Amino acid sequence: MKLVKNATGRLVPVQVNGRKEIPFKGVNKFKPTGVKAKPPIRTCIDYPADGNKVVKNLKEALKKAGLKDGMTISTHHHLRNGDVLTNLLFDTIKQMGIKNIRWFPTASFPCHQHLIKYLEDGTIHHIEGSMNGPLGRFTTQGKMKGVGVLRSHGGRYQAVQDGEVHVDIAVIAAPTSDPFGNSNGVNGKSACGLIGFALADSEYADKTIVVTDNLVPFPCIPWQIQGNNVDYVVQIDSLGDATKIVSGTTEITKSPDRLLIAEYVAQFIEEAGIMKDGFSFQAGSGGTNLAFVLYLKERMKAKGVKASFVRGGSTKYLVQLLEEGLTNYILDGQTFDLEGVRSMRENPRHQNTSPFTSYNFHGKGNFASIVDAAVLGATEVDVNFNANVVTHSDGYLLHGIGGWQNCLYSKCTILAIPSFRDRIPVILDEVTTICGPGELVDVIITERGIAINPKRKDLIAAVKNSKLPIKSIKQIRDEVYEICGGAPAKPKLNKNKVVAVVKWVDGTVLDSVFQVID
Amino acid sequence: MKLVKNATGRLVPVQVNGRKEIPFKGVNKFKPTGVKAKPPIRTCIDYPADGNKVVKNLKEALKKAGLKDGMTISTHHHLRNGDVLTNLLFDTIKQMGIKNIRWFPTASFPCHQHLIKYLEDGTIHHIEGSMNGPLGRFTTQGKMKGVGVLRSHGGRYQAVQDGEVHVDIAVIAAPTSDPFGNSNGVNGKSACGLIGFALADSEYADKTIVVTDNLVPFPCIPWQIQGNNVDYVVQIDSLGDATKIVSGTTEITKSPDRLLIAEYVAQFIEEAGIMKDGFSFQAGSGGTNLAFVLYLKERMKAKGVKASFVRGGSTKYLVQLLEEGLTNYILDGQTFDLEGVRSMRENPRHQNTSPFTSYNFHGKGNFASIVDAAVLGATEVDVNFNANVVTHSDGYLLHGIGGWQNCLYSKCTILAIPSFRDRIPVILDEVTTICGPGELVDVIITERGIAINPKRKDLIAAVKNSKLPIKSIKQIRDEVYEICGGAPAKPKLNKNKVVAVVKWVDGTVLDSVFQVID
Repeated sequence: MKLVKNATGRLVPVQVNGRKEIPFKGVNKFKPTGVKAKPPIRTCIDYPADGNKVVKNLKEALKKAGLKDGMTISTHHHLRNGDVLTNLLFDTIKQMGIKNIRWFPTASFPCHQHLIKYLEDGTIHHIEGSMNGPLGRFTTQGKMKGVGVLRSHGGRYQAVQDGEVHVDIAVIAAPTSDPFGNSNGVNGKSACGLIGFALADSEYADKTIVVTDNLVPFPCIPWQIQGNNVDYVVQIDSLGDATKIVSGTTEITKSPDRLLIAEYVAQFIEEAGIMKDGFSFQAGSGGTNLAFVLYLKERMKAKGVKASFVRGGSTKYLVQLLEEGLTNYILDGQTFDLEGVRSMRENPRHQNTSPFTSYNFHGKGNFASIVDAAVLGATEVDVNFNANVVTHSDGYLLHGIGGWQNCLYSKCTILAIPSFRDRIPVILDEVTTICGPGELVDVIITERGIAINPKRKDLIAAVKNSKLPIKSIKQIRDEVYEICGGAPAKPKLNKNKVVAVVKWVDGTVLDSVFQVID
Repeated sequence: MKLVKNATGRLVPVQVNGRKEIPFKGVNKFKPTGVKAKPPIRTCIDYPADGNKVVKNLKEALKKAGLKDGMTISTHHHLRNGDVLTNLLFDTIKQMGIKNIRWFPTASFPCHQHLIKYLEDGTIHHIEGSMNGPLGRFTTQGKMKGVGVLRSHGGRYQAVQDGEVHVDIAVIAAPTSDPFGNSNGVNGKSACGLIGFALADSEYADKTIVVTDNLVPFPCIPWQIQGNNVDYVVQIDSLGDATKIVSGTTEITKSPDRLLIAEYVAQFIEEAGIMKDGFSFQAGSGGTNLAFVLYLKERMKAKGVKASFVRGGSTKYLVQLLEEGLTNYILDGQTFDLEGVRSMRENPRHQNTSPFTSYNFHGKGNFASIVDAAVLGATEVDVNFNANVVTHSDGYLLHGIGGWQNCLYSKCTILAIPSFRDRIPVILDEVTTICGPGELVDVIITERGIAINPKRKDLIAAVKNSKLPIKSIKQIRDEVYEICGGAPAKPKLNKNKVVAVVKWVDGTVLDSVFQVID
């Protein structure tokens, strides 16, 4: 596999799974040429006039869709760790004797450990999509036949839109659908909020199959996925385990260190002058992020400040902001708890969005860069503010990118992270994998202090007279190394074997993940 | 101009405005091949990171969009006869010294008479889109430089999607927009309901300009047009005359004949067994259609029947059905009065739709064929049930197709028409222009009786024992000829000069409109 150094100095392959790739050229340096993917023109003549696209079962739908060896099948992570459909799908594909599928999920979860046997027996050739937990471990061990490709939510939309990834068959889990294929995620026993991650697939896949456990009469409203893009509808008993679908990393942290970080974040946003009437912010899930929302809320109330919008992943804490009049809108990419689902169903100011709307870098702008502050996590950050979100210092690929890369484009990107975890430094000299170039990371907030990117002179000036514990990032690194006994031990890697690549939001290759030798 | 006979026996050109065309091959006979239009890939690098796409004025936006001689500019008829934007647009184009524009509106209205001077001086080369009133007269007189192309709402979406018509610059009138270009028609002083007719253009045009008289902070919700598809936003004082924007042919007819027709329609729908729980119907604007809704409503109430959905153009009468619980949903293509606008703004069960959703024949199905009954008008119907909706018997092109052709696909298409107008037969031997092939027209309801298409044996059987005045269409024609003194006088046509063509929903050429010699 031929590797070249890209603009971050990382070695990346020039070809991945047989496809020529462009090495990362720097932030905002690569301009695409060419035209969008061009799906075949369809005709109503080939679809039932009465709008009833229901077929007997998944196997029937896959047959009608022309499933063949080597095809690309996409799924979506709306059902999260409660998903049974994807496992059922590959059980069916296996039964049908089909081989070498490229699986193109928006994300995989521990529940998809079930699929390892299909990676082993050749039913699935490789995965392009985030590989959380077991599948990531399997991949890092060099056991997957092809090379994994990790994309952000926006990057996935971009790849489909630009024709980089052609989806042969999209299988969309729909908590509610009508026989025409109009579908949503806000109603039904498997309600997950929204199903916008499937938008690109519904628009560009050759064939789209909607699978539902709540078939309602036409018209299914709202239609988050439009039946006009759907070929077949399949009814099954249950899409998954409802308690895990809306699973939620939605408990506030109890760790004093994490609470301190959350408090610093809120304080920083206020003291830097970001928290003012009409401002906006994005907070993901995870204990620290949730706590920060509560702290910021108190500050907003104290100062009488109202946000114009907040971005989810939504939780009950964001819903409270909306319902208490502290924000005009929630612009939501996914709902993390049942309160989020309820709010999206009931409140027109809780607006569902899609990766096209929010994150697609190859559009006429997107929402991510409009947001005043984004508060994110990371597995590692280096002294040049480069950040990692997919691997750990032991080299294992255990997380997906999600919307993280896309959110880096906010006006003030804050990584709220502990300075070390399990006595392994999080702030260090060099990240294992670069997922976000340092120039887009503005502030690092740890329990030991706050480091502002030297490029952001405006932020440095804004908080100069505050009581915030501002330090240089190197100072924080030194303290952490002191505590942990130096830099983390380097994993033993097989540098001849790239097991996965990390794409940047523009489709170029930002970094490689190498095989770990145990 | 070379003409050939198509499947209806009509003479149609094989080339229109320099483009090769396919003659109509019969209903459901033409299957498209090839791929959809492929817009260039864009990048966020070229758009303002803060999401503010507002430019100084329309001229500036047109300049930035690269306006050049011979380009195709699209507009949309959401502002109806109150539109001032389109006239302002062409005043600006004229000022800029640009020539030979192909104007691609969804429809034109009498207020666009202003543009005749630009058709005369070469600013506009020709119009593709419906030409109501003065522009239609101008065209029929052979004065337009190019050939007019008439498409249904669905056909227009199809043409853009399929790459038949490439829009260089779309100019979208938006009653409300944010600086990013997210727009809707439900809010603002020029609220018109929805702006879905601009969807295709926003998706496929090279450049999209949103013009608004109500610029609101981001995010504009709902976003009927997505800012991610918009290049520039222009603020002007007023999009038009609000009293004419929601102008409404929304008065119930007072004519006893028309009321009788309306009553027959309601009675037919009940007695034919169509009016049952969960049924659906579409009613357009116009006095007879509105009256029919009221009659049907009484019958629904009397029998305790509830519709699953009704399709608009919505008016207060449809809104009443919704609010009184007589239908679950309004699926609305446009709002014809302020009550419709209010309902769409307030009631999530009053769902806006687009030509993609409702009418695009080159999709994976559409809504039109799901509807149980569509009640439509016509200017002429012949004894083979072929119908005309664009020209009068004097040869003049005075109306657009709208969604009419698309609605013919309903399960029961009823033309509710007077048997004659101004002593000119409406039921006659041969229509001046075929807009709808007879095999799709199921029932003709006139004040003199009801004719059922012999193909619809099921409907004939269903009403056999009713008291409805069922007649053959020839019998009605005979009666009408008797009253009017025979067939209408044939206009003097220049058969060497096609002034416009009528497209079928699949993009083939259904008929020609010839120059009338006064």
